[in-house]
Amino acid sequence: MVMDTCYAVIFSSQRTDGDHGYGAMSDKMEELAAKQPGFLSVESVRDASGAGITISYWESLEAIQNWRQNGLHQVAQEKGKQAWYESYNVKICKVERAYSYPAAGHS
Amino acid sequence: MVMDTCYAVIFSSQRTDGDHGYGAMSDKMEELAAKQPGFLSVESVRDASGAGITISYWESLEAIQNWRQNGLHQVAQEKGKQAWYESYNVKICKVERAYSYPAAGHS
Repeated sequence: MVMDTCYAVIFSSQRTDGDHGYGAMSDKMEELAAKQPGFLSVESVRDASGAGITISYWESLEAIQNWRQNGLHQVAQEKGKQAWYESYNVKICKVERAYSYPAAGHS
Repeated sequence: MVMDTCYAVIFSSQRTDGDHGYGAMSDKMEELAAKQPGFLSVESVRDASGAGITISYWESLEAIQNWRQNGLHQVAQEKGKQAWYESYNVKICKVERAYSYPAAGHS
């Protein structure tokens, strides 16, 4: 498989204690993100201490920018700062190479 | 802070059941990676189901390649396929932009 150009948004965060509506909004945002033009996939892990990494993959920087400016997503981002996250950092990356085990195919 | 060029290695994996020496080797590899030329930082999260994401950051693609070819790391990679991981995928990325909350400084 020859990989097309693709971009990753790494969202690394530390949750505050308690839910405060986080679970429902998180599900909703994941569903909404998946409907955006240029969305490819998402993977997410959070451990019992509240440390989490979510990576979403996109076809272009424009798609990432559009999702960042989505109205409902902006409401969630604001709520994230107010209530859900002690801290987070975001890195926007261009995927240069990818491989997997077991091998998914020829690249 | 003006960000210098930097690269991320996203390692997303599913562990097999049981330790099989994984914990000790994982600690050793994290310690060894941190000593490599061009290493910047690492962040890692694994949940109770065994799903994990580890991201290491490096100054250059050469530094990533050197670490990949490190002898002890190659032993660990082989053992990873044999015993520790049901599956994994690796993505090598160029970090284009980064921001954080609370803001770490001016970028």
